[in-house]
Amino acid sequence: MATSSGKKNAFYAQSGGVTAVINASACGVIETARKHKDKIGKVYAGRNGIIGALTEDLIDTSKEPKSAIAALRHTPSGAFGSCRYKLKSLEQNQREYERLIEVFEAHNIGYFFYNGGGDSADTCLKVSQLSKSMGYPIQAIHVPKTVDNDLPVTDNCPGFGSVAKYIAVSTREASFDVASMAKTSTKVFILEVMGRHAGWIAAAGAMASSEDCEIPVVVLFPEVTFNRRKFMQTVKQKVKQFGYVSIVVSEGVKSRDGKFLADQGLKDAFGHAQLGGVAPVVANMIREDLGLKYHWAVADYLQRAARHIASKTDVDQAYAMGKAAVELAMKGKNSVMPTVVRTSNNPYRWKVGEARLSRVANVEKMMPKSFISKDGFGITKKCRDYLGPLMKGEDYPPYGKDGLPKYVRLKNAPVKRKLGDFKV
Amino acid sequence: MATSSGKKNAFYAQSGGVTAVINASACGVIETARKHKDKIGKVYAGRNGIIGALTEDLIDTSKEPKSAIAALRHTPSGAFGSCRYKLKSLEQNQREYERLIEVFEAHNIGYFFYNGGGDSADTCLKVSQLSKSMGYPIQAIHVPKTVDNDLPVTDNCPGFGSVAKYIAVSTREASFDVASMAKTSTKVFILEVMGRHAGWIAAAGAMASSEDCEIPVVVLFPEVTFNRRKFMQTVKQKVKQFGYVSIVVSEGVKSRDGKFLADQGLKDAFGHAQLGGVAPVVANMIREDLGLKYHWAVADYLQRAARHIASKTDVDQAYAMGKAAVELAMKGKNSVMPTVVRTSNNPYRWKVGEARLSRVANVEKMMPKSFISKDGFGITKKCRDYLGPLMKGEDYPPYGKDGLPKYVRLKNAPVKRKLGDFKV
Repeated sequence: MATSSGKKNAFYAQSGGVTAVINASACGVIETARKHKDKIGKVYAGRNGIIGALTEDLIDTSKEPKSAIAALRHTPSGAFGSCRYKLKSLEQNQREYERLIEVFEAHNIGYFFYNGGGDSADTCLKVSQLSKSMGYPIQAIHVPKTVDNDLPVTDNCPGFGSVAKYIAVSTREASFDVASMAKTSTKVFILEVMGRHAGWIAAAGAMASSEDCEIPVVVLFPEVTFNRRKFMQTVKQKVKQFGYVSIVVSEGVKSRDGKFLADQGLKDAFGHAQLGGVAPVVANMIREDLGLKYHWAVADYLQRAARHIASKTDVDQAYAMGKAAVELAMKGKNSVMPTVVRTSNNPYRWKVGEARLSRVANVEKMMPKSFISKDGFGITKKCRDYLGPLMKGEDYPPYGKDGLPKYVRLKNAPVKRKLGDFKV
Repeated sequence: MATSSGKKNAFYAQSGGVTAVINASACGVIETARKHKDKIGKVYAGRNGIIGALTEDLIDTSKEPKSAIAALRHTPSGAFGSCRYKLKSLEQNQREYERLIEVFEAHNIGYFFYNGGGDSADTCLKVSQLSKSMGYPIQAIHVPKTVDNDLPVTDNCPGFGSVAKYIAVSTREASFDVASMAKTSTKVFILEVMGRHAGWIAAAGAMASSEDCEIPVVVLFPEVTFNRRKFMQTVKQKVKQFGYVSIVVSEGVKSRDGKFLADQGLKDAFGHAQLGGVAPVVANMIREDLGLKYHWAVADYLQRAARHIASKTDVDQAYAMGKAAVELAMKGKNSVMPTVVRTSNNPYRWKVGEARLSRVANVEKMMPKSFISKDGFGITKKCRDYLGPLMKGEDYPPYGKDGLPKYVRLKNAPVKRKLGDFKV
């Protein structure tokens, strides 16, 4: 493999939607690479993901002081910029692969660390095949990241635990609020959460309720077809029993006709189509069917950026995945992804595993049926046992005198270009 | 005054929209009252605010252990239930005042502590006049609370600092997120915040940007009439300069015709009117006028319930207001409200003051013009100097093994009734 023939530089890039802890993985990659100076020269980051590689827009992370790299661990978002860009197959767009090789060669890059979800694993897989397909020696290692928790093989994905904690904490807090107001005012609170295909984030809303703190939470999963009558019955029953109810609705909930519930054909006064969230749609249904006073919230980016309430488990694992990726490279591996392997539930224990990228790319892991309660509106004990440890522990960022978290912004100094322009 | 004639019980109630720290005020009232056992018997809380007094639905807080009362300090929402209910004038509804006196007499209540905003101050004022108007000796003290920060006389209101911190932190985090994605995806992030009349909460969004961490934030205040053309110019310019922009929009923003921007006459596929938030309205305008990719969030209850990221200044002041209310009562005062008096900006110092309720009731404090920047989309240094200290410091709640905050639920044991029913 490439590593045998002297010192090579590494390429690292962030891909797809960012998370509260993807920079913790970057921190793991860069800090660990700096410990292997015998084999790894510099770590070059792609500015805006793989686009940085294609356009030769590389960032020299060696220009960043140790303290700045360490601060990545507590900084949300993608410090080098991310992108939504999937490489086509070698047959469809050979020019892009040739360009990647040109850039890698020009900058003596022998390691490719790609930090993303399922689509990114596919890109990483394609790059990992460049040795064979195009004769360029490279080791490509994928670093798992996705708030959606939908990657296969790994027990869970870094990024998810922190969103889960944010949603569970927020749902508990808002539920306490609506419970206080229910006598004379709001009785229904609706929170819209991310997860277009898989209901993992929505499931976290149900964690707001626990044995020592019961809260009536109704979850609408993308995996369960929306049944308005059954839903209203459940809402009505909860309000009768508890005086109030909290609803956590996934943006991906669909009605019987297969359409997103959010897509209700809203029109403004001029007849223009309006795009809204699913929370106001559910709210309006409750007004129509039950006439109850409601409030609704849409968490959107707040949920995946909320580093201030990140899960310690999640931060630790995100860092560990970055570290493990470099260590796998040092062992001469290619076309793999480090994984989280759960070895025990109680007490929670985990270790780092390894998966072939061919088993990861383009596979989506949905919520198992055994995780959703029989009525379709909640989660089972099995699901609780799974989710609990992922949300465990706090890992607060430092705060400034102004009461705001001190998130780092890197210098992101460019690496001198050696090639001509390339259009993406 | 009443205090001279032996030991009296106290009544405490929470009123209006709850906050992350109103229970810290309750904690201050109850803990301080327990230190004055020579003058104050029991503290009875109204279940669901003043309604609890009218319906003789009282909670005996003496049944709660010390630890539960202490835990109120870190528990959001209204532990005894709140309500939206404003007493009419004595002339309009004498029966209600007679009933209050019956309940007070039946339970030997000589102190009335009412924890709320401007409307509640009005109720408290009316109760404070019962000694004169109806010959019942009572000392009524108002405890300030409102996320809207719109009470006069006091420098700021408990409840606001924590919302401000939540909005500033969330805006900073989401801005980091959108900055990472802007190259190939979302360029505009829109966050809708509370504050129907006053733009204090919206102003806090601008605090996401600071000298050492510049962020392009555009604020839409309820105090500034919405000008679509000017707004789009500003958004366009920010995106050009920074690559992205964050917009913090108050739910109370109005267009030139005086209508709420949120009220856009949306209709669903069946022609039914739809109530949406202002964030999706602004998002759709940006799509129409600029064609930029956006994301939007509506914080709603999450912002005022977010005890997990409460401001330490706010928690301290909320407790201090509760404590001061009891101390004012012990000094024989009636018809007053403790206030926060700022004595120094840098370093921030404050002390407890006192205001006549007649100066507080029904007066709304808007953002001063000198706090809004000339272009109408931001805040001035004066505003920053005002807001900064209110958001300062963290005051984390304890967390359980499940990764969730441990918020207390009281027993809320009822006081035995002595009177007949009363309809409200």
